[in-house]
Amino acid sequence: MRVDCRPMSTKPSRTLETFPNPRPGRAYTIEFDCPEFTCVCPMTGQPDFATIRISYVPARKCVELKSLKLYLWSYRAEGAFHEDVTNRILDDLVAALKPRQARVVGDFAVRGGIHTVVTANHPDPAKKPRKR
Amino acid sequence: MRVDCRPMSTKPSRTLETFPNPRPGRAYTIEFDCPEFTCVCPMTGQPDFATIRISYVPARKCVELKSLKLYLWSYRAEGAFHEDVTNRILDDLVAALKPRQARVVGDFAVRGGIHTVVTANHPDPAKKPRKR
Amino acid sequence: MRVDCRPMSTKPSRTLETFPNPRPGRAYTIEFDCPEFTCVCPMTGQPDFATIRISYVPARKCVELKSLKLYLWSYRAEGAFHEDVTNRILDDLVAALKPRQARVVGDFAVRGGIHTVVTANHPDPAKKPRKR
Amino acid sequence: MRVDCRPMSTKPSRTLETFPNPRPGRAYTIEFDCPEFTCVCPMTGQPDFATIRISYVPARKCVELKSLKLYLWSYRAEGAFHEDVTNRILDDLVAALKPRQARVVGDFAVRGGIHTVVTANHPDPAKKPRKR
Amino acid sequence: MRVDCRPMSTKPSRTLETFPNPRPGRAYTIEFDCPEFTCVCPMTGQPDFATIRISYVPARKCVELKSLKLYLWSYRAEGAFHEDVTNRILDDLVAALKPRQARVVGDFAVRGGIHTVVTANHPDPAKKPRKR
Amino acid sequence: MRVDCRPMSTKPSRTLETFPNPRPGRAYTIEFDCPEFTCVCPMTGQPDFATIRISYVPARKCVELKSLKLYLWSYRAEGAFHEDVTNRILDDLVAALKPRQARVVGDFAVRGGIHTVVTANHPDPAKKPRKR
Amino acid sequence: MRVDCRPMSTKPSRTLETFPNPRPGRAYTIEFDCPEFTCVCPMTGQPDFATIRISYVPARKCVELKSLKLYLWSYRAEGAFHEDVTNRILDDLVAALKPRQARVVGDFAVRGGIHTVVTANHPDPAKKPRKR
Amino acid sequence: MRVDCRPMSTKPSRTLETFPNPRPGRAYTIEFDCPEFTCVCPMTGQPDFATIRISYVPARKCVELKSLKLYLWSYRAEGAFHEDVTNRILDDLVAALKPRQARVVGDFAVRGGIHTVVTANHPDPAKKPRKR
Amino acid sequence: MRVDCRPMSTKPSRTLETFPNPRPGRAYTIEFDCPEFTCVCPMTGQPDFATIRISYVPARKCVELKSLKLYLWSYRAEGAFHEDVTNRILDDLVAALKPRQARVVGDFAVRGGIHTVVTANHPDPAKKPRKR
Amino acid sequence: MRVDCRPMSTKPSRTLETFPNPRPGRAYTIEFDCPEFTCVCPMTGQPDFATIRISYVPARKCVELKSLKLYLWSYRAEGAFHEDVTNRILDDLVAALKPRQARVVGDFAVRGGIHTVVTANHPDPAKKPRKR
Repeated sequence: MRVDCRPMSTKPSRTLETFPNPRPGRAYTIEFDCPEFTCVCPMTGQPDFATIRISYVPARKCVELKSLKLYLWSYRAEGAFHEDVTNRILDDLVAALKPRQARVVGDFAVRGGIHTVVTANHPDPAKKPRKR
Repeated sequence: MRVDCRPMSTKPSRTLETFPNPRPGRAYTIEFDCPEFTCVCPMTGQPDFATIRISYVPARKCVELKSLKLYLWSYRAEGAFHEDVTNRILDDLVAALKPRQARVVGDFAVRGGIHTVVTANHPDPAKKPRKR
Repeated sequence: MRVDCRPMSTKPSRTLETFPNPRPGRAYTIEFDCPEFTCVCPMTGQPDFATIRISYVPARKCVELKSLKLYLWSYRAEGAFHEDVTNRILDDLVAALKPRQARVVGDFAVRGGIHTVVTANHPDPAKKPRKR
Repeated sequence: MRVDCRPMSTKPSRTLETFPNPRPGRAYTIEFDCPEFTCVCPMTGQPDFATIRISYVPARKCVELKSLKLYLWSYRAEGAFHEDVTNRILDDLVAALKPRQARVVGDFAVRGGIHTVVTANHPDPAKKPRKR
Repeated sequence: MRVDCRPMSTKPSRTLETFPNPRPGRAYTIEFDCPEFTCVCPMTGQPDFATIRISYVPARKCVELKSLKLYLWSYRAEGAFHEDVTNRILDDLVAALKPRQARVVGDFAVRGGIHTVVTANHPDPAKKPRKR
Repeated sequence: MRVDCRPMSTKPSRTLETFPNPRPGRAYTIEFDCPEFTCVCPMTGQPDFATIRISYVPARKCVELKSLKLYLWSYRAEGAFHEDVTNRILDDLVAALKPRQARVVGDFAVRGGIHTVVTANHPDPAKKPRKR
Repeated sequence: MRVDCRPMSTKPSRTLETFPNPRPGRAYTIEFDCPEFTCVCPMTGQPDFATIRISYVPARKCVELKSLKLYLWSYRAEGAFHEDVTNRILDDLVAALKPRQARVVGDFAVRGGIHTVVTANHPDPAKKPRKR
Repeated sequence: MRVDCRPMSTKPSRTLETFPNPRPGRAYTIEFDCPEFTCVCPMTGQPDFATIRISYVPARKCVELKSLKLYLWSYRAEGAFHEDVTNRILDDLVAALKPRQARVVGDFAVRGGIHTVVTANHPDPAKKPRKR
Repeated sequence: MRVDCRPMSTKPSRTLETFPNPRPGRAYTIEFDCPEFTCVCPMTGQPDFATIRISYVPARKCVELKSLKLYLWSYRAEGAFHEDVTNRILDDLVAALKPRQARVVGDFAVRGGIHTVVTANHPDPAKKPRKR
Repeated sequence: MRVDCRPMSTKPSRTLETFPNPRPGRAYTIEFDCPEFTCVCPMTGQPDFATIRISYVPARKCVELKSLKLYLWSYRAEGAFHEDVTNRILDDLVAALKPRQARVVGDFAVRGGIHTVVTANHPDPAKKPRKR
């Protein structure tokens, strides 16, 4: 069941809910651009801000949009390093969706005059080079 | 016969009309950018908005511009999930045109702070990898 | 009472709900950019698309965001000329809010190779020239 | 009667058709951006291209969108200098609409490495300074 | 060991600290653009995101940049309506700085397909019209 | 006397004049961006507007810039469908230049809310896949 | 034979030719954007590059576009300081056209990491403040 | 041997050299955009970066471009608060040039997620309101 | 008291500190965009400015963000040619991180009207062609 | 006295001076963007303007930036067709540097409503297809 338009009077949650892929026979791509991501620096407790960009090729399951929103919200009070949190979101998506392919980009606000972007792919391009 | 400039005092229609490809011997590309797409969320009945981007390499038939407009209009009152409607438009184009290649991109307006883009290709890149 | 974040499982409505201005003593400005507006051409029944931009200086009442959304949705099936609909939205806002000032801009998609923008102000600048 | 959505199987015409202003009591603004303008250089017969931008504050009449399109089309085969054609379009609009105010901008494609923009206002700002 | 966020190991605070204006004799302007603002919807507890833009003409005091950062951080867990929070930030700045002039703009992320911007000025332009 | 358009007192022409390639031994690329293209809808006689983008790798001949301009001008009074005219320009360039490679892109102004781009390549990529 | 530059086989000239203003009774504006300006540094003989932007309100005469091009060309071999050349072009335009108003902007390429823009108006705004 | 930086083998200097205004009789404007400014935070010794934008209406003297470059360079090793350094540059320009008007804008790189812009004018707009 | 720059009261340093890669098993990418880079021309002692862009695929170590900032700061007083400094930063990153891949781009401000960008990769693409 | 242009009191020169590549063992890329290029039309003597973009992978020699500037300056008085001059600059760079790879792009200002870009590579891609 798909409920991404329903009322959102809910709580942050680390669970990614899914619905059956409506075209499991075709390798197509779904991209999400999520500019409203914030977490906390594990060293100092200060807020960090990022845009999270997700793209994946679904296999049997798709992630529900509302559930994705609640999942990203769940980092609001959590300590998270840039490199780690980007990989963790990818791991969680892969665990929940078992997609054909997935990519997570964490595009973090400037700190110390430096803008940081972390990009992680599944399957690991070093292990299984993508054919083009 | 090609009539895309004729008066448009017509009705929305799910039928995609075609005309004979004027250069069937050459593999060339036709792209349409259609920012005026709206459908309805199947869960809530609320309106959704998207830009639909289509590109295809015609074989024997081309889609008529006016007919494409009426086809997209036909979703105005119809419930449609993002992932499904993008694939459905591709299926309908493939059925009507039997093109050498086709791609449909559904670029949907922000919901819950998240911007969604769905991209589907024919033939399925997982089944028949495109040569470059 | 202000409910703009509550679930939106509602219907289009021509009523603009309001809430008390939290700073009635200060002349400040509220702007809304609403790119998801569609109505119908009264001559042909074909869809029109626009971005509606609203700005107003509240007096005793503010318009509720969810109510504004439902109000704009209510034009989805209604015939409306560009010049008329822009003025009608302004009239409805003025009737509901009795604001110190208000402006409505209707920025309509290209028709016949021409892009149209209609801008209406309250109070009428010809009757009561704004001091600067 | 307003017919700007009707079929356009018509001819270029120097006549600007009008319809009654739906809000004659309010001084509001209508803007048109017309990038599809072409005329002919009177000296050489070669094509010139321009974007014509029109804005006016209607009094009792508004210009019909289709009629404006046919009017601009009527310059396609006509010799016209940049400075002159911009003023002529303003004169024709003023004659047809008797607007409270009007402005025509002719933004012409580069010739000889120089980009030319001509802007004419009614009423003449030198004769009757606009109050702001 | 990773320490790139460590230096500012301070807490959110509602107190705006100040330092003496280095040029109290000249009416000059200081602007801050703060894209990292988040608060909570008072109705639903869900996060809201905004860019806060501040500009002021200092009198005897200037606001300290780090203190401003901690002040904005203090809204992270607080319920705040768009119209109210923008005015509240202005009130707090005016109370702390007693500036010659101040403006706060709250530019809030899209909700329900609508982008909201609230702008408040001190002194109130309706009470004391700015000379230009 | 006004003479700024006078020098090119020539006529539209369907003939593409050429000059010898100054570096026939090197495979280099020449691109033209021609935003001043207009033709006529074959069904209605109404004007269409496009930007024509050409790129080619010359063999023994290059196309003369003025001749290209007169060639594009020759479509001004001619009925031409989007898909057909783009392929026809490619055919004419290939016939006149016998280039190593050539591409023509017809980027047509919005009609019915839809923006159309047609892209044709020589040699046909389906017949002779380009090496990269 | 290659002739695309041939028609304007004229010489640089310091004379600005004019033609009678086609609407001497109306105060309208003509703007030219001329990105192809180059002169020589009087100290070193090295080339300088600028965009010259001209706008004027004609009285009885307009400047001819080709003549303006030849005039700007005449600086190609001439030593000219940024501040001086901008004022000199204004002086020459004022002498040739006796316009109601004129403005010349010289927007010079970066030298020493600094980008310079010089703007001069006629009549002198310090002597005769423009009414608005 | 590499000499591309060699010619300006001079030193940073706090002296602003001038040359006589070539048009002292006209109130025209000179603007400089200087993105290569760096100073040092007085509290921590860490580097700060800014774009300095200067505009002035010269009276009898103009500032020499090379001298301005050396002047801005002189802040490279100097501690400077944002608000103070912007005013100091204005003071130095006013002292050296005695201009009719001058403005300095300091547009400083993001610190703590906040972007700061300081703008100072001479004469002080609070003391002597500019006529427009 | 003003303390907004204080926390990072450290010194420039040529040492790049590292922390263990949180996902050593996955080939993911980290990118840094560092617009606050300045060094000194070795011939003249004059300042140069650049944006340094770094991307790398970590193996066992990641570079610490604060340490990277102090490292880039260490060039502030050092003479460095464009081509050399870009390669030197790459060498230092490779020595400190032993990454799977790394790239450094030095994007230098305009000198003599010419903008220079230097790009260096590890491993050397000429020695070990990247698989795609 | 005004000296801001003085230091580079050199002459245009067709000789490209070089310096030893500081990292001859690595295949890295150097790009120059040169918007200040002007030559003369060989048919008419009229000025042409272009941006020249150069990129190369050095072998044993790098081109000196000042020398490149003087080299480009040397075309100021020289007749040069678009296609020819782009190839000539590439030939001269290849002769002087014997680079691993080189590319020259000539991006020429609009003539006759057409914008021309010429791109030439060394080694010739038709002779020696680049591996990717």
